[in-house]
Amino acid sequence: MSNIEEETVQIQRKGTWLTVRDDVKIVDCTIRDGGLVNDYHFSDDFVKAVYNTCVVSGVDYFEIGKIVSKTVMSPDEYGPWNFCEEEDIRRIVGDNNTDMKIAVMADIGRTFKEEIKPKSESVIDMIRVACYIHQIPAALEIIEDAHRKGYETTLNLMAISKVNDSDLDEVLEIVANSNVDIIYLVDSFGTFYSEQIRRLTQKYILLAEKNKKSVGIHAHNNQQLAYSNTIESMICGTSYLDATIAGLGRGAGNCPMELLFGFLRNPKFRILPLLDFIQKHIIPLRKELTWGYDIPFMITGQLNEHPRSAIGFNKNKRTDYSKLYNELTDAEE
Amino acid sequence: MSNIEEETVQIQRKGTWLTVRDDVKIVDCTIRDGGLVNDYHFSDDFVKAVYNTCVVSGVDYFEIGKIVSKTVMSPDEYGPWNFCEEEDIRRIVGDNNTDMKIAVMADIGRTFKEEIKPKSESVIDMIRVACYIHQIPAALEIIEDAHRKGYETTLNLMAISKVNDSDLDEVLEIVANSNVDIIYLVDSFGTFYSEQIRRLTQKYILLAEKNKKSVGIHAHNNQQLAYSNTIESMICGTSYLDATIAGLGRGAGNCPMELLFGFLRNPKFRILPLLDFIQKHIIPLRKELTWGYDIPFMITGQLNEHPRSAIGFNKNKRTDYSKLYNELTDAEE
Repeated sequence: MSNIEEETVQIQRKGTWLTVRDDVKIVDCTIRDGGLVNDYHFSDDFVKAVYNTCVVSGVDYFEIGKIVSKTVMSPDEYGPWNFCEEEDIRRIVGDNNTDMKIAVMADIGRTFKEEIKPKSESVIDMIRVACYIHQIPAALEIIEDAHRKGYETTLNLMAISKVNDSDLDEVLEIVANSNVDIIYLVDSFGTFYSEQIRRLTQKYILLAEKNKKSVGIHAHNNQQLAYSNTIESMICGTSYLDATIAGLGRGAGNCPMELLFGFLRNPKFRILPLLDFIQKHIIPLRKELTWGYDIPFMITGQLNEHPRSAIGFNKNKRTDYSKLYNELTDAEE
Repeated sequence: MSNIEEETVQIQRKGTWLTVRDDVKIVDCTIRDGGLVNDYHFSDDFVKAVYNTCVVSGVDYFEIGKIVSKTVMSPDEYGPWNFCEEEDIRRIVGDNNTDMKIAVMADIGRTFKEEIKPKSESVIDMIRVACYIHQIPAALEIIEDAHRKGYETTLNLMAISKVNDSDLDEVLEIVANSNVDIIYLVDSFGTFYSEQIRRLTQKYILLAEKNKKSVGIHAHNNQQLAYSNTIESMICGTSYLDATIAGLGRGAGNCPMELLFGFLRNPKFRILPLLDFIQKHIIPLRKELTWGYDIPFMITGQLNEHPRSAIGFNKNKRTDYSKLYNELTDAEE
C-alpha cells in the first residue's frame, strides 16, 4: 500500500443524526424544476395538490415556477408556471395563510425587474436568481431590486464544476457583500462527489457566516448522489435544502424529498402526505413524462457536461451508450 | 443555532480523488445477487456475456452464483447458478485463463462442506460466506474448511443494522482471529447513512488491519445510497467493493458498477464494455425482471427492515405506500 496517501480531513459537523436543526429549511422545487420537463404545462389540480401536500408535510418554501416576462417567451408555448402572474399564483394559494412561504425563480435576460411588484402587493415571499458566473452583475441587479422591494432573495450560481477556484472565490466575495440572503451551492451537472461537496460547502459556509447569510444546496441526480450530497452538505452546515417530490425534474431529476424526509429528525416534517401524493399523482405522471436516473445522464454527470447531449440522445431513442461516451470524450486538444 | 452541537470528526482518508489505489478490488455480483430475482434462471449466453464483460472491464472477482446442495434445494425450481457445479462453471469460464478470479457464495445450512472439492480440483478461487450473527460458528466452520482446501475466503456478516455494538464487537473479534481473508461490511437493508458507514468502516478496518485482513463492502440501494456509501467506505480504507451491472439484484438492487467505474481512477477499469453490455443485455432484461430503487424499498430501508414486506407489497400490485409505512411502524411496545 505504498502509493496510498494517508490524510486526515477535519469536518466541522453540525448536529448528529438525532439532532433537530431549526436552521434547516426545505425548499420544494417540484413545479419549478419539473416544469422544465413539460414546459410548465401542469394542471391547476396538480399544482394545488403539490401545494397542499407541501403545507401538511412541513415544507418551508414552495417554489411555484419562474417569473419570465411574457414579452420574451410565449404563453402559447409555455404554461402559466413559467410566468407566475400574481392572479395565477393566487388561484392556487389564495392569500397563502399558511406557515409555508412562496418562492419563484428569476431568469437572467428573461425576467424584467420592472415587472416585479413590491412585496406588499404580492403573495410571493422569496425571489431566487439562478445565473452563470458571467451573469453575476445582472443577477445582483435583480437581487438588490427584489431586496429593496421587500423580498427574501437567493443567488443560485450554476455550473460551478466548470469554474476555476480563483474565479469562484472572487465571485463569492462579491456575492457575500451583496444584500442577498442565501447563497446556493448548485451542482448543475450532477457531477460532484461527497468530498468535493464537503470542500465547497466549507468554502460557501465560511464566507456566508462571516456576512450573516445562509447557504443552500441544489443537487442533481445524474450519479445517484443528489440525496447523498444534500445530506453531506447539510451535515457540514448548509441550511436550505432543495428537493422535489419523487425527484421530478429535468434529466436525472433532483434530490427526492421523500428520501430527505427519512433523514430529517424534526417532527414538523411528515412523510405520509408525500407518500399519498406519489401514489395519487406521480404514478400516473410517469406514464406521461420521463425523468430520473438513466445511463445517458450518468455519462454527462461523470464527464462534467451539461445534460443537453443526453436529452438529445434520449429524444432520438438512441441506446448506443458507449458511442455517446465516446462522442463526449473525443480529444480536441 | 443554540441547539446545534458542533463536533469535529476525524476521517482517516486513504488516497484522494486522483489516487490509484492498488488495494481496491471490484467484485462483480451480477449473477449471484441478480439470481435472487429470477431463482438463478439465467441463460448460459447471459452468464457468458457478464463473464466476458467483466474480464475486459478489469473486474477482479466474478461471483458466478451460490454453492447450495442439491439435497436441500431442487434443480427443478432453481437454475444452475444456485448450485454452481464444477462442470456448469467450466461451461462458462473454461479453465478461466484470465486475470479475473472466480467466486461463489456459501449459504449457512444449505452448503455442505463435504461437497466442496479441494482448490486444486476446482476453477473456483474464492468462497464467500454470508451469515447472520447467530450463524457465526457455522460460518467459521465452512471458512476454516475452505481455507484448508486452498481457497480465499470472505465472511459477509449480514443485517448488522439490527445488531447492537457490543455484540458486533464480540463477533468481529472472533472473526478477526479466524483464517478468513476478508471481512465484509454488509448493509443488508440499505439503511445506513454515510456517517454510520464511516464509523462502521473504521471499526472493521481497525480490527482487520491488526490481523492482516482486508475489509469489503456490500451495499443495497434502498435509499439511493449504495454507490455513495461504497465510495465513502472505500475512502475510509475498504478494499473489496461489491457491485452489479445496472445494480441488478433483489429489491432495490446493489451498487451499480457503471457508477463505481466513474469514480475509480485506475486505468485498468474500463467503462465502455459495461455500457455495451447494458445496451445489449440490460435493456431487454428490464422487460422480464423488475429491480432497483422504488418507494416500497425506500420505506423498508428508512425503517431498517428486511425488504420482504416491500417484495410482497409489489407482488400484490399494491400502491398504497402510506399504508405500508403505517403497517411497518405500528406500535408494539
